[in-house]
Amino acid sequence: MATLIAPSNHSPQEDAESLRKAFEGWGTDERTVITILGHRNSHQIQQIRKAYEEIYQEDLIKRLESELKGDFEKAVYRWILEPADRDAVLANVALKSGKNYNVVVEIASILSPEELFNVRRAYIKRYKHSLEEDLATHTSGHLRQLLVGLVTAFRYVGDDVNARLAQSEADILHEAVKEKKGSQEEAVRILTTRSKAQLIATFNRYRETHGTSITKKLLEEGSDDFQKALYTTIRSFNDHVKYYEKVVRDAVKKVGTDEDALTRVIVSRAQHDLKAISDVYHKRNSVPFEHVVAKETSGDYKKLLLTLLGQED
Amino acid sequence: MATLIAPSNHSPQEDAESLRKAFEGWGTDERTVITILGHRNSHQIQQIRKAYEEIYQEDLIKRLESELKGDFEKAVYRWILEPADRDAVLANVALKSGKNYNVVVEIASILSPEELFNVRRAYIKRYKHSLEEDLATHTSGHLRQLLVGLVTAFRYVGDDVNARLAQSEADILHEAVKEKKGSQEEAVRILTTRSKAQLIATFNRYRETHGTSITKKLLEEGSDDFQKALYTTIRSFNDHVKYYEKVVRDAVKKVGTDEDALTRVIVSRAQHDLKAISDVYHKRNSVPFEHVVAKETSGDYKKLLLTLLGQED
Repeated sequence: MATLIAPSNHSPQEDAESLRKAFEGWGTDERTVITILGHRNSHQIQQIRKAYEEIYQEDLIKRLESELKGDFEKAVYRWILEPADRDAVLANVALKSGKNYNVVVEIASILSPEELFNVRRAYIKRYKHSLEEDLATHTSGHLRQLLVGLVTAFRYVGDDVNARLAQSEADILHEAVKEKKGSQEEAVRILTTRSKAQLIATFNRYRETHGTSITKKLLEEGSDDFQKALYTTIRSFNDHVKYYEKVVRDAVKKVGTDEDALTRVIVSRAQHDLKAISDVYHKRNSVPFEHVVAKETSGDYKKLLLTLLGQED
Repeated sequence: MATLIAPSNHSPQEDAESLRKAFEGWGTDERTVITILGHRNSHQIQQIRKAYEEIYQEDLIKRLESELKGDFEKAVYRWILEPADRDAVLANVALKSGKNYNVVVEIASILSPEELFNVRRAYIKRYKHSLEEDLATHTSGHLRQLLVGLVTAFRYVGDDVNARLAQSEADILHEAVKEKKGSQEEAVRILTTRSKAQLIATFNRYRETHGTSITKKLLEEGSDDFQKALYTTIRSFNDHVKYYEKVVRDAVKKVGTDEDALTRVIVSRAQHDLKAISDVYHKRNSVPFEHVVAKETSGDYKKLLLTLLGQED
């Protein structure tokens, strides 16, 4: 369930005018920015961007970038991009700013095949390179095979499962986790080509046959970038709500808080299943997610996140 | 240039009725089938299929399969499928019937990125598996990396070329052709991710630096399935008209003729650049392509091919 609270009817023109007023004069009226943009779904926001451009011959995003700053600006920017474009930006930033392959794995494993393809389209439009091209240039070996395979996949969507295949491929994954060369390549093949339903059946067979989950087993073994990416892939396919709970838990646990991760999960999921992620967080940590967000963040950034979390001011 | 001669206006309903009449009574009137279907472009044929289905509550393709036989039936079937669906079938048949990876390489290297993606969509719709899934299951090592990388690519389309990159990647390809392990993986990366314009610049740099074309060099070296697929990839990107000329030349040279290859090139290109392929054939072999086709084939199959080649009866 979504946490975003958006009215079913709004006037893009009036919203654009209110935003313009918020920019005018001395300083910016951030409260209005949050009240409007924090209460519109992505379709509505695209309409506002269009109306704003038509009325003022100005790009709303550029104007916001010049009006706002810091984590707040970053969060607003990410929130108001079209979802596919947002994911393209997140993937590109993650690749450039070091090696946060988790972001790429998330996008590839959690989105539907059609959504993932739209991200690739948006990526090429923005950067004039393909996502797989940039990924492949910066990685090698099994890690490259896994990451490139994940983002380029266009998987079958359906509930059909081949039970015998699930068993044999659970065994292959078991071998791979023990780090045998040949079977790692097979693990990559399985994770990058099988349908989600088939993969979940395979993970279940693994647990039944080997008495432990494959992710637990992966944690016990080494943890190079490839193993970490394998781990994230499997968790994302298996139960992405639980996976995201872990991401935000780690983000707020850090001294200084990982704002990028926090922003990413909230803006990406506010319109989808942030309620479920928030509930799992509450249950696991015995404290409401909103309370932790309120405690670890501040200012307009905090207000925006809480608004997206459905906390009325 | 196309060889297909199709009227700019036709009535799908009248065409459907004429086809129905051709099926009725004792035996099939193959001449009518050829006269109609051999003179309609793929968009028009899809309209005829739809009209036929609406009027007679019968699938035109199934009816044709029961009415026709042999190479003629196969060629009609391939010709009247939607192009993306046809390529999905060609790829699947090639994979099943042994190891004709050339067909897969062709599709992946010659189609535009959007067209290739449509083939993947059609493949999944038809087989409930992804094309890369079936490919990966039947291959391994560098061959798998190359084939899966080719079909899953969604490349940047544009003329922008990075000249420095072309030079450094020409050198990497040179190393790879000499069969060094590490650089083969890099060769796969280059061929599966770079844009067509960038690849052609790279092949040109190769020729200038090493005094010979990379394909010639590949021919001199070993010829396992991987090397063969590399060769086909490079030829298809470099100049697919010349590549297809070679395919049909080999097809008619064989004792017994390779009808599958001949049909594939003619039905795939009749609407696009079969005239250019035919011209290159004529120039290289000093005999018109149509004459060879007429000599090597017979019956209704021959009539259909010649019709698609623009030879009025």
